[in-house]
Amino acid sequence: MGNSSRFIKQVCDRIAPVDQSWLKAARERQLTLTKPPGSLGRLEEIANRLAAIQRTVTPRITGKRIYVVAGDHGVTTEGVSAYPREVTAQMVDNFLRGGAAINVLGRADGIEVNVVDASVDADLTDREGLIHAKVARGTRNFAVGPAMTRSEAEACVVAGIELARAAAGDGIELLGIGEMGIGNTTAASAITAVLLHCDPATVTGRGTGIDDKGLAHKIAVIRRALEINKPDGSDATDILAKVGGAEIGVMAGIVLGAAVNRLPIVADGFISTTAAALALTLQPQARDYLFNGHRSSERGHAALIDFIGESPLLDLSMRLGEGTGAALAMHVIEAAAKLLSEMATFADARVSNKA
Amino acid sequence: MGNSSRFIKQVCDRIAPVDQSWLKAARERQLTLTKPPGSLGRLEEIANRLAAIQRTVTPRITGKRIYVVAGDHGVTTEGVSAYPREVTAQMVDNFLRGGAAINVLGRADGIEVNVVDASVDADLTDREGLIHAKVARGTRNFAVGPAMTRSEAEACVVAGIELARAAAGDGIELLGIGEMGIGNTTAASAITAVLLHCDPATVTGRGTGIDDKGLAHKIAVIRRALEINKPDGSDATDILAKVGGAEIGVMAGIVLGAAVNRLPIVADGFISTTAAALALTLQPQARDYLFNGHRSSERGHAALIDFIGESPLLDLSMRLGEGTGAALAMHVIEAAAKLLSEMATFADARVSNKA
Repeated sequence: MGNSSRFIKQVCDRIAPVDQSWLKAARERQLTLTKPPGSLGRLEEIANRLAAIQRTVTPRITGKRIYVVAGDHGVTTEGVSAYPREVTAQMVDNFLRGGAAINVLGRADGIEVNVVDASVDADLTDREGLIHAKVARGTRNFAVGPAMTRSEAEACVVAGIELARAAAGDGIELLGIGEMGIGNTTAASAITAVLLHCDPATVTGRGTGIDDKGLAHKIAVIRRALEINKPDGSDATDILAKVGGAEIGVMAGIVLGAAVNRLPIVADGFISTTAAALALTLQPQARDYLFNGHRSSERGHAALIDFIGESPLLDLSMRLGEGTGAALAMHVIEAAAKLLSEMATFADARVSNKA
Repeated sequence: MGNSSRFIKQVCDRIAPVDQSWLKAARERQLTLTKPPGSLGRLEEIANRLAAIQRTVTPRITGKRIYVVAGDHGVTTEGVSAYPREVTAQMVDNFLRGGAAINVLGRADGIEVNVVDASVDADLTDREGLIHAKVARGTRNFAVGPAMTRSEAEACVVAGIELARAAAGDGIELLGIGEMGIGNTTAASAITAVLLHCDPATVTGRGTGIDDKGLAHKIAVIRRALEINKPDGSDATDILAKVGGAEIGVMAGIVLGAAVNRLPIVADGFISTTAAALALTLQPQARDYLFNGHRSSERGHAALIDFIGESPLLDLSMRLGEGTGAALAMHVIEAAAKLLSEMATFADARVSNKA
């Protein structure tokens, strides 16, 4: 067992579920607040979970950060995407200049947007503000062999764990993941098909917008990838290495790192949910820390949501990625925390409670 | 025809749909922004509608206000609610002191929360900061006769129109409605049954939390109210007067007033949606200005949503009222506007567009 592998295992072993006594205390406080019991619906569940994560009945969220992890994919040489591969690097520059959708949402809500290069196929060493975690200039084409070696895949997960630790050190109280990578819905669909033991056709969608012919081709490419690589459905690292992507590995590491640092973590859409699903395959106990930001309109996400068992907070037919759904969901999570922490009680407000 | 009646008709006559050319211009701008076409889903539809309302392709929302309209209901003497009637006035004080859920959400997002007394059964004349629009100390018990006279109902609508005009004058760019009123789900279910020509049992729920026996009684009370009052399903004012409530009338007026002042207006849950439905019955052209904040878990809301034909932005199993769902939805609407106005274009960011 290599160093990375040992480190990941140690992190997984240290992840513990939230303390049930704090969940109970939060539920009791909810009943004292000036509203009919349960009338804030999912906001109450969210707030109670935050209370248990933070070990207080008055949870608060100040620092918020989204890691937008970028990577290129060898499989794009098969012609699976509507956009050319160089868009990944171009969008990284757009993120760094503040022009992308996630930047707009980050500015609006005080969410730090940190951009990570996991495997962009361009020399970005001179880019200021970019976090360098490159394992390769693009993964290899998984239609003909594994996308990464096992040790490359583990390096991605380790990098993600370190990013979550850095966030905790910076006082971040709510973390999100998002991604950019031309070709990465192909990887995400392949991972989903393996995890769910289903035919790729049922979990493969149009990504950024391919036509019917393109979709049929994309499904054929994924089928071929699974036949050639034969990923082991019970071994998350094997799946990640063979048919995954570097940004997906980094995001999986961020989920594990968030859980071990007791930080709530918000997944975005289809691709980041595959990362969360891989993380939960490595350590199911990370689940208490995970929030599912939104239901993506990308095919495959619905089945994956059932797999991770955490229903999305928003359903706005979005399918952009970048962490845009996570950013919007963070607002709901923060609102839930404030309601539990700031609302008046029946006693304080001298409001008559239920007869 | 009385003065109020004439005024309401004049307002309705001045409401016009949004300009289609601005909708088209906004759709064209969306295609130039650095994202796959349509990938922001409903956020694009929302932003395009705001663009058409504001007649610009870079819509902006700064001032936001929610009117929380409070009223008491004579029908509470029939024992239809889980909470005693005095809670309406107590909650008005809670709103004015900033302790309620809507205050927490308002503070978090810079939304002004203005509280309106439409028919609270208490002398609140000394309350600072309260907007006084009282038509009665509680409506009359509609299980034995009309809740209001036609002229009282019209006075409520006029008061609402004036509130929307005041908001426009204050530079508000996004308006919301919410309510507080023990017994008002009974009125809302009665209105819904009339508008949808359906049996009250299918649109009557537990409100703040009555049990099975209470629910059966509530349905029986509504059936009796409809038999005795025989409201005319095509006459919104008749429905409002006979089985409605003063706060519902004021909110209906706010919807009409928002539309005539070209302000986007966000409905909250079940009760405020009945107000929106009454407004749309008076003037269907107000529809372009209306956003449906969230799907309430109160029975009856789903059918009403189909009736107004505007699907909700959020679905968080909330059923509190006060404008809490509208407040959360305002964040989504504001985010949509910012994305359209602030995102970089493919040309500016030098990102390659779709092949």
